[in-house]
Amino acid sequence: MTRVALIGCGRMGSVHGRNLASNPRLELAAVADADPVRRKAQAASLGTREASFEEILADRSIAAVVIATPTSEHLEGTLRALHAGKAVFCEKPLALDLATLAAAAGELAAPPQPLFVAFNRRFDPHYRALKTRIDAGEIGVLESLHIVNHDPALPALEFIPHSGGLFKDFTIHDFDMAAWLLGEDPVEVFAWSACLIDPEIARLGDVDTAKVLLRTASGRLCAISNSRRTAYGYDQRIEAFGAAGALRVDNVTVTAVSRWGANGAQADAFPTTFIERYADAYRGELDHFADVLERKAAPAAGYAENMRALALAEAAARSASAGAPAKP
Amino acid sequence: MTRVALIGCGRMGSVHGRNLASNPRLELAAVADADPVRRKAQAASLGTREASFEEILADRSIAAVVIATPTSEHLEGTLRALHAGKAVFCEKPLALDLATLAAAAGELAAPPQPLFVAFNRRFDPHYRALKTRIDAGEIGVLESLHIVNHDPALPALEFIPHSGGLFKDFTIHDFDMAAWLLGEDPVEVFAWSACLIDPEIARLGDVDTAKVLLRTASGRLCAISNSRRTAYGYDQRIEAFGAAGALRVDNVTVTAVSRWGANGAQADAFPTTFIERYADAYRGELDHFADVLERKAAPAAGYAENMRALALAEAAARSASAGAPAKP
Amino acid sequence: MTRVALIGCGRMGSVHGRNLASNPRLELAAVADADPVRRKAQAASLGTREASFEEILADRSIAAVVIATPTSEHLEGTLRALHAGKAVFCEKPLALDLATLAAAAGELAAPPQPLFVAFNRRFDPHYRALKTRIDAGEIGVLESLHIVNHDPALPALEFIPHSGGLFKDFTIHDFDMAAWLLGEDPVEVFAWSACLIDPEIARLGDVDTAKVLLRTASGRLCAISNSRRTAYGYDQRIEAFGAAGALRVDNVTVTAVSRWGANGAQADAFPTTFIERYADAYRGELDHFADVLERKAAPAAGYAENMRALALAEAAARSASAGAPAKP
Amino acid sequence: MTRVALIGCGRMGSVHGRNLASNPRLELAAVADADPVRRKAQAASLGTREASFEEILADRSIAAVVIATPTSEHLEGTLRALHAGKAVFCEKPLALDLATLAAAAGELAAPPQPLFVAFNRRFDPHYRALKTRIDAGEIGVLESLHIVNHDPALPALEFIPHSGGLFKDFTIHDFDMAAWLLGEDPVEVFAWSACLIDPEIARLGDVDTAKVLLRTASGRLCAISNSRRTAYGYDQRIEAFGAAGALRVDNVTVTAVSRWGANGAQADAFPTTFIERYADAYRGELDHFADVLERKAAPAAGYAENMRALALAEAAARSASAGAPAKP
Repeated sequence: MTRVALIGCGRMGSVHGRNLASNPRLELAAVADADPVRRKAQAASLGTREASFEEILADRSIAAVVIATPTSEHLEGTLRALHAGKAVFCEKPLALDLATLAAAAGELAAPPQPLFVAFNRRFDPHYRALKTRIDAGEIGVLESLHIVNHDPALPALEFIPHSGGLFKDFTIHDFDMAAWLLGEDPVEVFAWSACLIDPEIARLGDVDTAKVLLRTASGRLCAISNSRRTAYGYDQRIEAFGAAGALRVDNVTVTAVSRWGANGAQADAFPTTFIERYADAYRGELDHFADVLERKAAPAAGYAENMRALALAEAAARSASAGAPAKP
Repeated sequence: MTRVALIGCGRMGSVHGRNLASNPRLELAAVADADPVRRKAQAASLGTREASFEEILADRSIAAVVIATPTSEHLEGTLRALHAGKAVFCEKPLALDLATLAAAAGELAAPPQPLFVAFNRRFDPHYRALKTRIDAGEIGVLESLHIVNHDPALPALEFIPHSGGLFKDFTIHDFDMAAWLLGEDPVEVFAWSACLIDPEIARLGDVDTAKVLLRTASGRLCAISNSRRTAYGYDQRIEAFGAAGALRVDNVTVTAVSRWGANGAQADAFPTTFIERYADAYRGELDHFADVLERKAAPAAGYAENMRALALAEAAARSASAGAPAKP
Repeated sequence: MTRVALIGCGRMGSVHGRNLASNPRLELAAVADADPVRRKAQAASLGTREASFEEILADRSIAAVVIATPTSEHLEGTLRALHAGKAVFCEKPLALDLATLAAAAGELAAPPQPLFVAFNRRFDPHYRALKTRIDAGEIGVLESLHIVNHDPALPALEFIPHSGGLFKDFTIHDFDMAAWLLGEDPVEVFAWSACLIDPEIARLGDVDTAKVLLRTASGRLCAISNSRRTAYGYDQRIEAFGAAGALRVDNVTVTAVSRWGANGAQADAFPTTFIERYADAYRGELDHFADVLERKAAPAAGYAENMRALALAEAAARSASAGAPAKP
Repeated sequence: MTRVALIGCGRMGSVHGRNLASNPRLELAAVADADPVRRKAQAASLGTREASFEEILADRSIAAVVIATPTSEHLEGTLRALHAGKAVFCEKPLALDLATLAAAAGELAAPPQPLFVAFNRRFDPHYRALKTRIDAGEIGVLESLHIVNHDPALPALEFIPHSGGLFKDFTIHDFDMAAWLLGEDPVEVFAWSACLIDPEIARLGDVDTAKVLLRTASGRLCAISNSRRTAYGYDQRIEAFGAAGALRVDNVTVTAVSRWGANGAQADAFPTTFIERYADAYRGELDHFADVLERKAAPAAGYAENMRALALAEAAARSASAGAPAKP
């Protein structure tokens, strides 16, 4: 088993910590966090030891780190870990600013150790199956995509100013999915956004609703819909239209139970947290990282994929502000 | 257009009257009913004339009658109309008593004019498609059937004593469907029934819930579920299991609209009246009768099919009372 | 019964003719068509008489006409019929050219007799229920719409040059639906289109695939997807997203039968012709027109609605060609 | 972490072994198997040590055993482990013969250590939700149940003579589910069975298809359908009908992807192995056992539940052979 340390014990850190602890190919060697109380609690609950980031970097028995710190610390943590000879699993995104990220190209584009940027949706079993089936030619030549990515509920408003804005924080998943599924880089973006849910978000300089179009060099089209609040749980769907048919990933429900009452059939609820909706994806990411560590796979996403998604997010923001298409 | 008269202006008469009036191959020549007020209203609303049953029988321009009188008058009406040289479309069943019906075999088994007994479910487009696909071999050799036939709500209690009981009034549809779909006559019946919905029904000597098993000579099995009340509209489903797969007719909904709310996806309601659920079937019956009148088709169901279903119903009642399988 | 004549015996004329013949409130008084053979056949099959357009206009017993001629003759036919004192049911659109239609405002905006422009989707029971439920506030304040309108198969290529182009011929339905459902006029359009299905369509100056965004004054957004070919039948869906939930109209299937085989559950096919998909809508249009003739309803769509949809179509074409948003 | 040993390294043993290895509350202390090659391989793959059953019983550091040996060894293994002071998780059933099992009542009905008999379906999240919702009164008073339990494919024929027959091997799950969900013991059974799939099974004295009815003292009814082969994967459904509505557990699919092609919408496949279909249930069983070991829960099923299910199975066999209802 490869020894791996967890850096960051917040919400995502807890998810990765539990998955590390139960993955038979990985050994959770230690956990680090800037907050000593949280670090201690996490170590105890996962049955591992606590350590500082520095101690982890210095420990030759630890081959890799999972970075789940606040986004603003992703890039520095990744660089330090790579310098220390560790393979890196970093929560997406590496950075919120394209220029900053571009400046790190020399160290990250061809890193000395494997660098995996965890775009979780690529490991969702439903989306993976979609990708496999598109690539297998089930619907012939792919012509267009529809992506719906609506969150159950607004994030805490204090998060908004640090989020990078809707396109970088939220649509970035869709930009990555679109490029991955289309098999071709989008070359143009058009975005209309609005603040329809909570005027506080507008006061903080952000939007909560968007419709985005992407176009590739060969003319393929992708439509993305974003909303920060559904009132009905996670709405996460993708449809792919091709010359020979279509593939649809519909929403999942918590169970296969439905109730039949006076108003008809009521399916079970949609998941209401991304941790629940993407539980399999988070486990799958770590399995993939185990493959990477065993040199069975190259990282499914790294610096280049993060750059591409971030460039599309910045283009979308420019488009929305200019009222005209923009290029990434 | 063939001239057809409607005998009986109650609930089913109104359904058939409207369908007669709008069927381009049939002309509604007259309506009859024992109640002169109801007869006049029906004639006015359908734009046709009123007449007595006798006048209709005497009218040589009228080729056929649709009999939608109370069940107790079906048999006599059918016999008189056939004697008068009319083709007959009779609401099911011809009679509630097997011996009575058997006594009419001489006149009905090979009638002088076409006799169609309107088992409406055979004309439901969903069940027709099921039958066509079973017969086309889509699931290989048919092995068993599941039929769910649950009513939205209890009938008026005053109807119960005249209904013939659950098996003759209600399950009779399922007995006909089972024999039709199995392509083979059931030779044995086992039934458990209960009064779980309203103890008044038990006081009236009837039951409101039943599970019935049928077995054919070749060993095919059929399970039927009946309930007089669902609290969620019409529950009308059939599943057919074969060597190469299964076919399922699921419930229909009023529209394809669903609502997504805090509890998940809520499909539209199920139909709540048989008139709504089987609207297409009632139209289809008359189309079939028009084919029969044009000598393009033999009646899909007649005396023999009615006898078979009634014999199964009587066997089910005997089984339920004896606590042992019975033969029809 | 109001006497109505049918003008035009092509594909749509046949649909309306059959529905006129079976509608209990309307009497099909005569059929007209430029082609005498087709006219005679239609009259015979519907059991009515044939007549010229002029004879129909002169017949004082005929109160209304249903115009189902080629699109290029819609406007002149409508004007002549109105002048002759007839109420008019005209297939959409009244004209393909905005300036031409605008020039007729004096005669059509407040016509002397009722003028109903038959946007059929408004009468589809699924979409009607959607509209009713949005308006009833089921999902709170409406925020955005998704409309998928994909045709099963390319039209005959010879039709393309006379069609007015994808936006006027095809998306026009969606423009009408969007404005109707949003309850607010779109004030801006952005469209990307492409020729992904058949390069012949590009040679004829048209496109076969489009993604269109609409925006209203209050910031509501609508995304429309169009394709001229699905390979899987009619794909006709709408989703409405609001503050308190979402409403979805999913595709309908021919029957409720599904087959379970080695690859899982296979639902029944989607309808493959608009005549099948919108059969109820066409019947509903005529019921509405009967209401209009009986002065129970004002026309659900007329000159103004046609102008609005056509203006959006022209704006979409300008947007697609300029690569920038356009105003209708 | 409680130290647990695995007894038996066959198919079910491998499932439990993997789940033991990744359960954060349980430590897989050792594995035993009569076959030394298989035992060694299992120990290596799970990163634990191998041991004999005797060594495990003698090891005071091991608090519990998971027994996944052949069914014929369940009872003896359970008794020896209990005598050695271990808590026991035993694969169902404890024994195939009612009299044999009854004879062990003295030691098993009130065992010195917790005894959990692993009826896996009780831990399936879909069925658990069903149970919770029935008990919460969502459908009012429960009236009847429908259970479909169809296997994807025939077992190896050499398994049949040791299986105990369809009712004890297969329907036993349904008997347990029925009693659990009904909240009341069935007091009467009626069963018709047939050999419709493979005549070899009849030659071996067994059947492959059955329809079974159960009745409780209060008149509740349950219909069970069994087939040893579907040709379409796992068919595992339950419907519960009550005074205020119904609850349905429909089949699950491998993913939420569907394909739309010329024949309509094709959902993803059903699972084809019970290991896949009940993966969550097997994990849930061990979580429950961890709760039992931590004294947070009493075993959800033990000797009494196994006796009840086995008695129903024997009654079903008697009913099928006598052609009359039987009492358990």
